[in-house]
Amino acid sequence: MEIKVLKNILDANDQMAIQNRKLLASKKIMMINVWASPGAGKTTTMLRTAETLKGKARMAVIEGDVASSIDTVKLTQSGVTAIQINTDGGCHLDAGMINLALQNLPLDELDIIFIENVGNLICPGEFDLGEYKRIIISSTPEGEDKPHKYPLMFTIADACIVNKIDLMPYVNFDINSFMRTVSGMNGKIEIFKISSINGDGVDKWADWVLKQLDSYRQ
Amino acid sequence: MEIKVLKNILDANDQMAIQNRKLLASKKIMMINVWASPGAGKTTTMLRTAETLKGKARMAVIEGDVASSIDTVKLTQSGVTAIQINTDGGCHLDAGMINLALQNLPLDELDIIFIENVGNLICPGEFDLGEYKRIIISSTPEGEDKPHKYPLMFTIADACIVNKIDLMPYVNFDINSFMRTVSGMNGKIEIFKISSINGDGVDKWADWVLKQLDSYRQ
Repeated sequence: MEIKVLKNILDANDQMAIQNRKLLASKKIMMINVWASPGAGKTTTMLRTAETLKGKARMAVIEGDVASSIDTVKLTQSGVTAIQINTDGGCHLDAGMINLALQNLPLDELDIIFIENVGNLICPGEFDLGEYKRIIISSTPEGEDKPHKYPLMFTIADACIVNKIDLMPYVNFDINSFMRTVSGMNGKIEIFKISSINGDGVDKWADWVLKQLDSYRQ
Repeated sequence: MEIKVLKNILDANDQMAIQNRKLLASKKIMMINVWASPGAGKTTTMLRTAETLKGKARMAVIEGDVASSIDTVKLTQSGVTAIQINTDGGCHLDAGMINLALQNLPLDELDIIFIENVGNLICPGEFDLGEYKRIIISSTPEGEDKPHKYPLMFTIADACIVNKIDLMPYVNFDINSFMRTVSGMNGKIEIFKISSINGDGVDKWADWVLKQLDSYRQ
Protein backbone atom coordinates (compact mmCIF):
# COMPACT_ATOMS: atom_id res chain seq x y z
CA MET A 1 0.00 0.00 0.00
CA GLU A 2 1.33 3.40 -0.92
CA ILE A 3 0.90 6.09 1.69
CA LYS A 4 0.80 9.58 0.32
CA VAL A 5 2.06 12.36 2.51
CA LEU A 6 1.43 15.96 1.56
CA LYS A 7 4.81 17.39 2.35
CA ASN A 8 3.83 20.85 3.45
CA ILE A 9 1.14 23.45 3.17
CA LEU A 10 2.34 24.57 -0.25
CA ASP A 11 2.23 21.00 -1.50
CA ALA A 12 -1.36 20.58 -0.29
CA ASN A 13 -2.21 23.91 -1.92
CA ASP A 14 -0.69 22.82 -5.22
CA GLN A 15 -2.73 19.59 -5.20
CA MET A 16 -5.90 21.62 -4.75
CA ALA A 17 -4.83 24.09 -7.46
CA ILE A 18 -4.58 21.16 -9.88
CA GLN A 19 -8.13 20.10 -8.95
CA ASN A 20 -9.40 23.65 -9.52
CA ARG A 21 -7.66 23.77 -12.90
CA LYS A 22 -9.29 20.46 -13.95
CA LEU A 23 -12.75 21.55 -12.82
CA LEU A 24 -12.44 24.83 -14.73
CA ALA A 25 -11.13 23.06 -17.85
CA SER A 26 -14.16 20.74 -17.80
CA LYS A 27 -16.38 23.82 -17.77
CA LYS A 28 -14.20 25.79 -20.23
CA ILE A 29 -13.95 28.66 -17.73
CA MET A 30 -10.83 30.81 -17.73
CA MET A 31 -9.73 32.00 -14.27
CA ILE A 32 -7.54 35.08 -13.74
CA ASN A 33 -5.82 35.82 -10.42
CA VAL A 34 -5.66 39.58 -9.72
CA TRP A 35 -3.01 40.96 -7.34
CA ALA A 36 -2.60 44.52 -6.04
CA SER A 37 -1.83 46.73 -3.04
CA PRO A 38 -4.73 47.80 -0.83
CA GLY A 39 -6.57 50.60 -2.61
CA ALA A 40 -5.04 50.18 -6.08
CA GLY A 41 -8.53 49.99 -7.60
CA LYS A 42 -9.12 46.26 -8.05
CA THR A 43 -12.88 46.43 -7.56
CA THR A 44 -13.46 49.47 -9.79
CA THR A 45 -11.32 47.73 -12.44
CA MET A 46 -13.56 44.65 -12.09
CA LEU A 47 -16.68 46.84 -12.45
CA ARG A 48 -15.30 48.50 -15.61
CA THR A 49 -14.21 45.15 -17.01
CA ALA A 50 -17.71 43.71 -16.47
CA GLU A 51 -19.26 46.70 -18.27
CA THR A 52 -16.87 46.32 -21.20
CA LEU A 53 -17.25 42.53 -21.49
CA LYS A 54 -21.06 42.70 -21.39
CA GLY A 55 -22.51 40.68 -24.28
CA LYS A 56 -19.04 39.26 -25.10
CA ALA A 57 -18.29 37.02 -22.13
CA ARG A 58 -20.04 36.11 -18.87
CA MET A 59 -17.87 36.86 -15.84
CA ALA A 60 -17.90 36.43 -12.08
CA VAL A 61 -15.59 37.72 -9.34
CA ILE A 62 -14.29 35.86 -6.28
CA GLU A 63 -13.60 38.58 -3.70
CA GLY A 64 -10.83 37.96 -1.16
CA ASP A 65 -10.61 40.20 1.90
CA VAL A 66 -9.30 39.88 5.43
CA ALA A 67 -12.69 41.16 6.60
CA SER A 68 -15.90 42.82 5.31
CA SER A 69 -17.96 42.23 2.17
CA ILE A 70 -17.94 45.82 0.90
CA ASP A 71 -16.60 44.92 -2.55
CA THR A 72 -19.00 42.02 -3.13
CA VAL A 73 -21.90 44.32 -2.27
CA LYS A 74 -20.57 46.90 -4.79
CA LEU A 75 -20.26 44.27 -7.52
CA THR A 76 -23.61 42.55 -6.98
CA GLN A 77 -25.40 45.91 -6.79
CA SER A 78 -24.00 46.56 -10.28
CA GLY A 79 -25.28 43.19 -11.50
CA VAL A 80 -21.92 41.38 -11.42
CA THR A 81 -21.95 37.81 -10.07
CA ALA A 82 -19.63 37.82 -7.05
CA ILE A 83 -18.83 35.74 -4.01
CA GLN A 84 -16.92 36.82 -0.89
CA ILE A 85 -14.13 34.97 0.89
CA ASN A 86 -13.09 36.40 4.25
CA THR A 87 -9.66 35.14 5.33
CA ASP A 88 -10.20 36.32 8.92
CA GLY A 89 -6.68 37.70 9.31
CA GLY A 90 -5.05 35.60 6.58
CA CYS A 91 -2.82 37.50 4.17
CA HIS A 92 -3.62 35.57 0.95
CA LEU A 93 -6.17 33.29 -0.68
CA ASP A 94 -5.32 29.60 -1.06
CA ALA A 95 -6.53 27.01 -3.54
CA GLY A 96 -8.84 25.39 -0.98
CA MET A 97 -10.72 28.65 -0.47
CA ILE A 98 -11.07 29.01 -4.24
CA ASN A 99 -12.37 25.43 -4.47
CA LEU A 100 -15.13 26.28 -1.99
CA ALA A 101 -15.98 29.44 -3.92
CA LEU A 102 -16.15 27.50 -7.21
CA GLN A 103 -18.63 25.08 -5.62
CA ASN A 104 -20.85 28.07 -4.88
CA LEU A 105 -20.74 29.79 -8.28
CA PRO A 106 -23.06 29.03 -11.23
CA LEU A 107 -20.25 27.51 -13.34
CA ASP A 108 -22.50 26.55 -16.26
CA GLU A 109 -23.32 30.22 -16.78
CA LEU A 110 -19.75 31.56 -16.78
CA ASP A 111 -16.86 32.11 -19.22
CA ILE A 112 -14.39 33.98 -17.00
CA ILE A 113 -13.75 34.10 -13.25
CA PHE A 114 -11.60 36.86 -11.81
CA ILE A 115 -10.09 36.32 -8.37
CA GLU A 116 -9.67 39.62 -6.56
CA ASN A 117 -6.96 38.46 -4.16
CA VAL A 118 -6.32 40.04 -0.74
CA GLY A 119 -4.71 43.50 -1.11
CA ASN A 120 -1.06 42.58 -0.54
CA LEU A 121 1.95 42.72 -2.87
CA ILE A 122 3.81 39.87 -1.17
CA CYS A 123 2.11 36.71 0.14
CA PRO A 124 -0.55 36.06 -2.57
CA GLY A 125 2.24 35.68 -5.16
CA GLU A 126 3.36 32.44 -3.51
CA PHE A 127 0.07 30.54 -3.89
CA ASP A 128 -1.13 28.90 -7.11
CA LEU A 129 -4.93 28.99 -7.09
CA GLY A 130 -5.48 27.08 -10.31
CA GLU A 131 -5.67 30.22 -12.46
CA TYR A 132 -4.80 30.47 -16.15
CA LYS A 133 -3.33 34.00 -15.99
CA ARG A 134 -1.98 36.32 -13.29
CA ILE A 135 -2.43 40.08 -13.30
CA ILE A 136 -0.92 42.78 -11.15
CA ILE A 137 -2.59 46.17 -10.78
CA SER A 138 -0.28 49.02 -9.74
CA SER A 139 -1.69 52.52 -9.27
CA THR A 140 0.11 55.78 -9.99
CA PRO A 141 -0.11 57.28 -6.44
CA GLU A 142 1.86 54.26 -5.13
CA GLY A 143 4.97 55.49 -6.98
CA GLU A 144 7.09 53.98 -9.73
CA ASP A 145 9.45 52.10 -7.40
CA LYS A 146 7.04 49.28 -6.46
CA PRO A 147 8.52 46.68 -8.88
CA HIS A 148 11.94 47.12 -7.22
CA LYS A 149 10.48 46.67 -3.74
CA TYR A 150 8.05 43.81 -4.48
CA PRO A 151 9.77 41.96 -7.33
CA LEU A 152 8.10 38.53 -7.22
CA MET A 153 4.65 39.46 -8.51
CA PHE A 154 5.96 41.76 -11.23
CA THR A 155 8.30 38.99 -12.38
CA ILE A 156 5.69 36.23 -12.65
CA ALA A 157 2.57 38.15 -13.77
CA ASP A 158 1.26 37.81 -17.33
CA ALA A 159 -0.05 41.36 -17.44
CA CYS A 160 0.29 44.58 -15.47
CA ILE A 161 -2.41 47.21 -15.29
CA VAL A 162 -1.24 50.72 -14.40
CA ASN A 163 -4.39 52.18 -12.84
CA LYS A 164 -5.34 55.76 -11.89
CA ILE A 165 -3.62 57.38 -14.89
CA ASP A 166 -6.14 60.22 -14.36
CA LEU A 167 -4.10 61.15 -11.24
CA MET A 168 -0.78 61.43 -13.10
CA PRO A 169 -0.80 65.26 -13.21
CA TYR A 170 -0.97 65.35 -9.39
CA VAL A 171 1.49 62.64 -8.31
CA ASN A 172 5.19 61.85 -8.80
CA PHE A 173 4.99 58.88 -11.14
CA ASP A 174 7.31 58.52 -14.14
CA ILE A 175 5.32 56.05 -16.23
CA ASN A 176 8.13 55.47 -18.73
CA SER A 177 10.55 54.61 -15.96
CA PHE A 178 7.91 52.27 -14.43
CA MET A 179 7.34 50.51 -17.77
CA ARG A 180 11.06 50.13 -18.42
CA THR A 181 11.56 48.58 -14.98
CA VAL A 182 8.69 46.11 -15.35
CA SER A 183 9.65 45.09 -18.90
CA GLY A 184 13.25 44.66 -17.76
CA MET A 185 12.16 42.26 -14.99
CA ASN A 186 9.67 40.36 -17.12
CA GLY A 187 10.17 40.33 -20.89
CA LYS A 188 6.79 38.69 -21.58
CA ILE A 189 4.53 40.97 -19.51
CA GLU A 190 1.82 43.03 -21.22
CA ILE A 191 1.22 46.50 -19.76
CA PHE A 192 -2.10 48.38 -19.89
CA LYS A 193 -2.61 52.00 -18.80
CA ILE A 194 -6.13 52.61 -17.51
CA SER A 195 -8.31 54.79 -15.35
CA SER A 196 -10.89 52.60 -13.67
CA ILE A 197 -12.70 55.77 -12.57
CA ASN A 198 -13.30 57.29 -16.03
CA GLY A 199 -12.85 54.13 -18.12
CA ASP A 200 -9.83 55.27 -20.19
CA GLY A 201 -7.87 52.35 -21.61
CA VAL A 202 -10.23 49.65 -20.31
CA ASP A 203 -11.19 48.59 -23.87
CA LYS A 204 -7.63 47.45 -24.67
CA TRP A 205 -7.38 45.53 -21.42
CA ALA A 206 -10.76 43.86 -22.10
CA ASP A 207 -9.61 42.93 -25.63
CA TRP A 208 -6.58 41.22 -24.13
CA VAL A 209 -8.83 39.27 -21.73
CA LEU A 210 -11.00 38.06 -24.62
CA LYS A 211 -7.89 37.06 -26.59
CA GLN A 212 -6.71 34.99 -23.60
CA LEU A 213 -10.14 33.33 -23.45
CA ASP A 214 -9.77 32.33 -27.11
CA SER A 215 -6.29 30.89 -26.49
CA TYR A 216 -7.48 29.06 -23.39
CA ARG A 217 -10.33 27.38 -25.23
CA GLN A 218 -8.27 26.25 -28.23
CA MET B 1 18.05 21.54 35.06
CA GLU B 2 15.28 23.53 33.46
CA ILE B 3 14.94 23.18 29.72
CA LYS B 4 13.32 26.11 28.04
CA VAL B 5 11.37 25.46 24.86
CA LEU B 6 10.25 28.38 22.74
CA LYS B 7 6.77 27.22 21.85
CA ASN B 8 6.47 28.70 18.38
CA ILE B 9 7.84 31.39 16.15
CA LEU B 10 5.65 34.05 17.76
CA ASP B 11 6.90 33.05 21.18
CA ALA B 12 10.53 33.32 20.03
CA ASN B 13 9.69 36.69 18.48
CA ASP B 14 8.13 37.93 21.71
CA GLN B 15 11.23 36.94 23.70
CA MET B 16 13.39 38.95 21.33
CA ALA B 17 10.97 41.90 21.45
CA ILE B 18 11.43 41.97 25.24
CA GLN B 19 15.22 42.09 24.76
CA ASN B 20 14.88 44.95 22.27
CA ARG B 21 12.64 46.84 24.68
CA LYS B 22 15.19 46.42 27.51
CA LEU B 23 18.10 47.54 25.33
CA LEU B 24 16.19 50.63 24.21
CA ALA B 25 15.11 51.45 27.79
CA SER B 26 18.75 51.31 28.90
CA LYS B 27 19.59 53.86 26.19
CA LYS B 28 16.38 55.92 26.72
CA ILE B 29 15.52 55.54 23.05
CA MET B 30 11.86 55.51 22.02
CA MET B 31 11.05 53.17 19.11
CA ILE B 32 7.98 53.62 16.90
CA ASN B 33 6.75 50.90 14.51
CA VAL B 34 5.27 52.38 11.31
CA TRP B 35 2.81 50.35 9.24
CA ALA B 36 1.26 51.17 5.84
CA SER B 37 0.28 49.87 2.42
CA PRO B 38 2.88 49.94 -0.35
CA GLY B 39 3.13 53.52 -1.62
CA ALA B 40 1.27 55.25 1.22
CA GLY B 41 4.20 57.64 1.72
CA LYS B 42 6.10 56.15 4.66
CA THR B 43 9.52 57.36 3.50
CA THR B 44 8.45 60.90 2.59
CA THR B 45 6.71 61.06 5.98
CA MET B 46 9.99 60.00 7.62
CA LEU B 47 11.89 62.68 5.66
CA ARG B 48 9.40 65.40 6.74
CA THR B 49 9.46 64.15 10.31
CA ALA B 50 13.28 64.33 10.38
CA GLU B 51 13.17 67.92 9.04
CA THR B 52 10.63 68.94 11.67
CA LEU B 53 12.37 67.21 14.59
CA LYS B 54 15.78 68.72 13.70
CA GLY B 55 17.32 70.30 16.80
CA LYS B 56 14.60 68.80 19.03
CA ALA B 57 15.35 65.06 18.91
CA ARG B 58 17.88 62.83 17.15
CA MET B 59 16.21 60.18 15.04
CA ALA B 60 17.10 57.17 12.89
CA VAL B 61 15.04 54.96 10.60
CA ILE B 62 15.15 51.17 10.23
CA GLU B 63 13.93 50.48 6.69
CA GLY B 64 12.15 47.19 6.01
CA ASP B 65 11.67 46.06 2.42
CA VAL B 66 11.26 42.76 0.62
CA ALA B 67 14.04 43.91 -1.72
CA SER B 68 16.03 47.04 -2.70
CA SER B 69 17.56 49.84 -0.62
CA ILE B 70 15.88 52.74 -2.45
CA ASP B 71 14.40 54.28 0.69
CA THR B 72 17.58 54.04 2.76
CA VAL B 73 19.46 55.80 -0.03
CA LYS B 74 16.80 58.56 -0.06
CA LEU B 75 17.03 59.01 3.71
CA THR B 76 20.82 58.97 4.01
CA GLN B 77 21.16 61.39 1.08
CA SER B 78 19.00 63.78 3.12
CA GLY B 79 21.23 63.33 6.16
CA VAL B 80 18.92 60.97 8.08
CA THR B 81 20.60 58.03 9.84
CA ALA B 82 19.07 54.89 8.30
CA ILE B 83 19.71 51.18 8.03
CA GLN B 84 18.15 48.75 5.55
CA ILE B 85 16.69 45.32 6.28
CA ASN B 86 15.82 43.20 3.25
CA THR B 87 13.41 40.39 4.12
CA ASP B 88 14.12 38.59 0.82
CA GLY B 89 10.48 37.67 0.21
CA GLY B 90 9.32 37.89 3.83
CA CYS B 91 6.11 39.87 4.38
CA HIS B 92 6.98 41.51 7.73
CA LEU B 93 9.85 42.45 10.02
CA ASP B 94 10.45 40.39 13.14
CA ALA B 95 12.09 41.26 16.45
CA GLY B 96 15.29 39.38 15.56
CA MET B 97 15.81 41.53 12.47
CA ILE B 98 15.30 44.64 14.58
CA ASN B 99 17.80 43.36 17.14
CA LEU B 100 20.43 43.06 14.39
CA ALA B 101 19.61 46.54 13.15
CA LEU B 102 19.91 47.97 16.69
CA GLN B 103 23.38 46.45 16.99
CA ASN B 104 24.36 48.41 13.89
CA LEU B 105 22.96 51.80 14.84
CA PRO B 106 24.80 54.49 16.88
CA LEU B 107 22.46 54.11 19.88
CA ASP B 108 24.33 56.61 22.05
CA GLU B 109 23.53 59.33 19.54
CA LEU B 110 19.77 58.69 19.21
CA ASP B 111 16.52 59.66 20.91
CA ILE B 112 13.97 58.08 18.56
CA ILE B 113 14.05 55.13 16.16
CA PHE B 114 11.30 54.75 13.58
CA ILE B 115 10.80 51.33 12.03
CA GLU B 116 9.46 51.63 8.51
CA ASN B 117 7.92 48.18 8.30
CA VAL B 118 7.36 46.25 5.05
CA GLY B 119 4.50 47.79 3.01
CA ASN B 120 1.68 45.45 4.00
CA LEU B 121 -1.55 46.08 5.96
CA ILE B 122 -1.80 42.52 7.32
CA CYS B 123 1.21 40.50 8.49
CA PRO B 124 3.36 43.17 10.23
CA GLY B 125 0.50 43.79 12.70
CA GLU B 126 1.08 40.37 14.26
CA PHE B 127 4.70 40.89 15.30
CA ASP B 128 5.82 42.83 18.35
CA LEU B 129 9.22 44.35 17.56
CA GLY B 130 9.85 45.89 20.98
CA GLU B 131 8.40 49.27 20.00
CA TYR B 132 6.85 51.83 22.37
CA LYS B 133 4.17 53.05 19.93
CA ARG B 134 2.57 51.81 16.72
CA ILE B 135 1.51 54.05 13.87
CA ILE B 136 -0.51 53.34 10.75
CA ILE B 137 -0.24 55.58 7.69
CA SER B 138 -3.24 55.48 5.34
CA SER B 139 -3.25 57.59 2.18
CA THR B 140 -6.29 59.23 0.56
CA PRO B 141 -6.03 57.49 -2.87
CA GLU B 142 -6.39 54.12 -1.12
CA GLY B 143 -10.00 54.93 -0.26
CA GLU B 144 -11.83 55.33 3.03
CA ASP B 145 -12.80 51.64 3.36
CA LYS B 146 -9.36 50.34 4.38
CA PRO B 147 -10.13 50.14 8.14
CA HIS B 148 -13.07 47.81 7.40
CA LYS B 149 -10.94 45.56 5.21
CA TYR B 150 -7.76 45.49 7.34
CA PRO B 151 -9.12 45.92 10.86
CA LEU B 152 -6.27 44.60 13.03
CA MET B 153 -3.75 47.41 12.53
CA PHE B 154 -6.33 50.19 12.83
CA THR B 155 -7.59 48.59 16.06
CA ILE B 156 -4.20 48.30 17.80
CA ALA B 157 -2.35 51.39 16.51
CA ASP B 158 -1.68 54.34 18.82
CA ALA B 159 -1.92 56.89 16.02
CA CYS B 160 -3.11 57.05 12.43
CA ILE B 161 -1.65 59.42 9.86
CA VAL B 162 -3.91 60.23 6.92
CA ASN B 163 -1.36 61.10 4.25
CA LYS B 164 -1.72 62.73 0.80
CA ILE B 165 -4.45 65.16 1.87
CA ASP B 166 -3.19 67.32 -1.05
CA LEU B 167 -4.82 64.73 -3.39
CA MET B 168 -8.26 64.96 -1.75
CA PRO B 169 -9.76 67.15 -4.52
CA TYR B 170 -8.94 64.44 -7.10
CA VAL B 171 -9.89 61.19 -5.33
CA ASN B 172 -13.00 59.70 -3.74
CA PHE B 173 -12.11 59.89 -0.06
CA ASP B 174 -14.60 61.01 2.56
CA ILE B 175 -12.24 61.98 5.39
CA ASN B 176 -15.03 62.41 7.94
CA SER B 177 -16.36 58.94 7.24
CA PHE B 178 -12.79 57.56 7.49
CA MET B 179 -12.21 59.29 10.84
CA ARG B 180 -15.55 58.10 12.24
CA THR B 181 -14.75 54.52 11.24
CA VAL B 182 -11.26 54.56 12.77
CA SER B 183 -12.39 56.24 16.00
CA GLY B 184 -15.27 53.75 16.25
CA MET B 185 -12.83 50.82 16.04
CA ASN B 186 -10.24 52.32 18.36
CA GLY B 187 -11.37 54.90 20.91
CA LYS B 188 -7.80 55.82 21.94
CA ILE B 189 -6.27 56.41 18.51
CA GLU B 190 -4.95 59.86 17.58
CA ILE B 191 -5.50 60.92 13.95
CA PHE B 192 -3.25 63.34 12.03
CA LYS B 193 -4.00 64.72 8.57
CA ILE B 194 -0.83 65.47 6.64
CA SER B 195 0.70 65.93 3.21
CA SER B 196 4.19 64.49 3.25
CA ILE B 197 4.81 66.12 -0.15
CA ASN B 198 4.09 69.73 0.87
CA GLY B 199 4.51 69.37 4.65
CA ASP B 200 0.97 70.34 5.69
CA GLY B 201 0.07 69.02 9.15
CA VAL B 202 3.50 67.52 9.86
CA ASP B 203 4.11 69.93 12.76
CA LYS B 204 1.19 68.53 14.78
CA TRP B 205 2.34 64.96 14.14
CA ALA B 206 5.90 65.86 15.21
CA ASP B 207 4.57 67.53 18.38
CA TRP B 208 2.78 64.28 19.24
CA VAL B 209 6.03 62.33 18.71
CA LEU B 210 7.90 64.66 21.09
CA LYS B 211 5.11 64.33 23.66
CA GLN B 212 5.43 60.53 23.48
CA LEU B 213 9.19 60.86 24.00
CA ASP B 214 8.55 62.87 27.17
CA SER B 215 6.08 60.25 28.47
CA TYR B 216 8.44 57.42 27.60
CA ARG B 217 11.31 58.98 29.51
CA GLN B 218 9.32 59.76 32.65
